[in-house]
Amino acid sequence: MSQIRTVAIVGGTHGNEVTGIYLLKKWQKDVSPVTRASFSTELVHGNPRAHKYNVRYCDQDLNRQFALKDLNNPHLAGNEQSRAKALNQQLGPKGANPRVDFIIDLHTTTSNMGTTLLIERQHPLYYQLAAYVKQRMPHCIIIRDEDDMAEEDNYLLCTLGRFGVIVEVGPTPQGVLKQQVFEESEQLTLVILDFIEHYNNGTLPALPATVEAYHYVGSLKLPTNDVGERTAMVHSHVDGKDFQPLNPGDPLFAGFDGSVIAYKGEQTVYPAFVNEAAYYDSNGALSLHEKVVLKVEPR
Amino acid sequence: MSQIRTVAIVGGTHGNEVTGIYLLKKWQKDVSPVTRASFSTELVHGNPRAHKYNVRYCDQDLNRQFALKDLNNPHLAGNEQSRAKALNQQLGPKGANPRVDFIIDLHTTTSNMGTTLLIERQHPLYYQLAAYVKQRMPHCIIIRDEDDMAEEDNYLLCTLGRFGVIVEVGPTPQGVLKQQVFEESEQLTLVILDFIEHYNNGTLPALPATVEAYHYVGSLKLPTNDVGERTAMVHSHVDGKDFQPLNPGDPLFAGFDGSVIAYKGEQTVYPAFVNEAAYYDSNGALSLHEKVVLKVEPR
Repeated sequence: MSQIRTVAIVGGTHGNEVTGIYLLKKWQKDVSPVTRASFSTELVHGNPRAHKYNVRYCDQDLNRQFALKDLNNPHLAGNEQSRAKALNQQLGPKGANPRVDFIIDLHTTTSNMGTTLLIERQHPLYYQLAAYVKQRMPHCIIIRDEDDMAEEDNYLLCTLGRFGVIVEVGPTPQGVLKQQVFEESEQLTLVILDFIEHYNNGTLPALPATVEAYHYVGSLKLPTNDVGERTAMVHSHVDGKDFQPLNPGDPLFAGFDGSVIAYKGEQTVYPAFVNEAAYYDSNGALSLHEKVVLKVEPR
Repeated sequence: MSQIRTVAIVGGTHGNEVTGIYLLKKWQKDVSPVTRASFSTELVHGNPRAHKYNVRYCDQDLNRQFALKDLNNPHLAGNEQSRAKALNQQLGPKGANPRVDFIIDLHTTTSNMGTTLLIERQHPLYYQLAAYVKQRMPHCIIIRDEDDMAEEDNYLLCTLGRFGVIVEVGPTPQGVLKQQVFEESEQLTLVILDFIEHYNNGTLPALPATVEAYHYVGSLKLPTNDVGERTAMVHSHVDGKDFQPLNPGDPLFAGFDGSVIAYKGEQTVYPAFVNEAAYYDSNGALSLHEKVVLKVEPR
C-alpha cells in the first residue's frame, strides 16, 4: 500500500455543526498543529451555504450524496447534490485513484456520545488507527460499520478519499461551540494525523492485538399514532446514556399519556445518537449497536 | 383586583422549542390537568409556521414583537410581525382591558438553566406566585425583571394578557423533546394554575415573607476581532453553570489561541442563558444577574 501524501480535514459538512468550522478557522491562522512532514494537509469547508443559514443543510443532507451513481447523475441539482459534485472534483474523483489520500470529516451531535471515531470503510489501516487512538485517548469510542455498504454505494463524504473517517463529538446543541467538544475534536484529529505520520514513516508503536468497538445493528423510531403524530418521547432511562447497555424490558419510550414502553429486543444492545436533533423530522429516536472486537493486524 | 377568569397557555412562541407544543397536544387530548373550576383555559400555538420549519422564527423573533407601537404599526408585515397582530386580536388587545387575564408562555433553552419562572411585569400577585412556586418546587429559579421596561414598550408575548409569565426550562437542544424538560415544564405550569385557582378562591396558603430571585444586570458578547470574527468561546468554567457565582477574575472565555479571558466585573454575578443557541448569531454569550430578595405581600 502506497503512502498517504494528501490529507483533507473537512469541517461544516453539516452547516450547524460549527465546531469543525471553528477548528478550520483556527488552523487557517496557524497550520502548525495540523502540519506533519510526510504529507500535506488541506482544510475544506464542507457546506458554507448551509452554515450561512445555520442549518444542517439547505436542500439535502450533504453527507448522504456521495454514492457513485448520485455523483454521476446530472439530474440531481439541489444545493447539496451540486456541492457533492464540486467536492468530488476537488477531493476525488471517488474511486480507485482519488487525489486526496485521507479525509477526516468533523461532525458533532446533540447526543451524549462523547468522543467517537466512526470507521465506515474497509482496510486493515483503520483497525490499526483505532488501536492507536485508544492507546492515546482511552475514552474514545470506536464505531465500525465498514461491512454495511459497498464502497460505490456508500454515500458518506469521507468515501471521496482513498481513506476516510468521521470524527463525531457530543453533546452540543446545534450552532453552539462547547469548549470541551472543541478540544476533544481537536485532540482526536491531531492523534489521527500523528497516526498517519507514523504509518507513513513505519514508526507505529506496538499496538494491542484487539480493540473493543461498536457495530450498528438497527435504528428505532419514536412511536406514532394512526395519523403519524408522535405519542411518546425517548425515556430518561435511555436519553443521555449513549453506549450504556439497554436490556430487554428496560424503559425505552415515555408516552405522553404517562405510559412506559419497554425495549422489546432479545439481547442487550448499546444505543447511540440518542435523541439526536438532526434525526427528529424523521422521528428517529436512536441507533442500536452491539459490542464487537476488532483484530489489529501488525503493519 | 378582579379575579382571573381566562388563562391562555401558549406553546411554540419559538418554533423550535417543541416542549410547549407537545404539552399543548397532550392537553388538547385531555384537558383535565389544566382545567380548574374558577377560570377557563385556552391552549394557543404561538408560531405554527416557524414550527413547520423547525426554526425559532421565520422573519423576526416573535417574542420581541409586542411593544404597543409595533402592534399598531401597519408597516410591520413580516411573518412574526403579522402573527403578533393576530395574537393581539385573539388574546388582547394589549392594554388596560385585554380579553385574556393570564398568559403562561412556555419556552425552553439550550442553556443549563433548570426550571425557571420569569417575571417580567409589575404586580404583587407575581411575588405571591413566586413564593407559592418555591414552596412546591424549591429547585425552581425565579428571575424578576419587571422594573426594566415600561409596560407599553415591553415586547414580550406574555404582556398581551392582564397578567403573564414565562416558563423557561433547560437544557434541551432545539427541536428535541427531553422527558425531564417536558415534565418540569408541565409541573411548573400546573403549579401556576393551582396558584391562580387559590388566588381566585381566596384560599392561598401562608406564604414566606421573602423569596430569593435573580435580576438581570447585563449581557456579555463573545470577543471578536477587527473584522467581526469570533476569537473565543464560553469557557468551560462558566458553560453549563447557569446561576452559579461568577467572581471577578474567574475564567470567562477560552480563546481559540489557547488564551483565557477572565471576568472583569467588580462584583460576583450569576450567569444565565449561558451559550444559548438562539443568541448565537448576535454573538451573545450569556446574561448576568444579581441576587435579589422579593418581599411577598399577604393577599
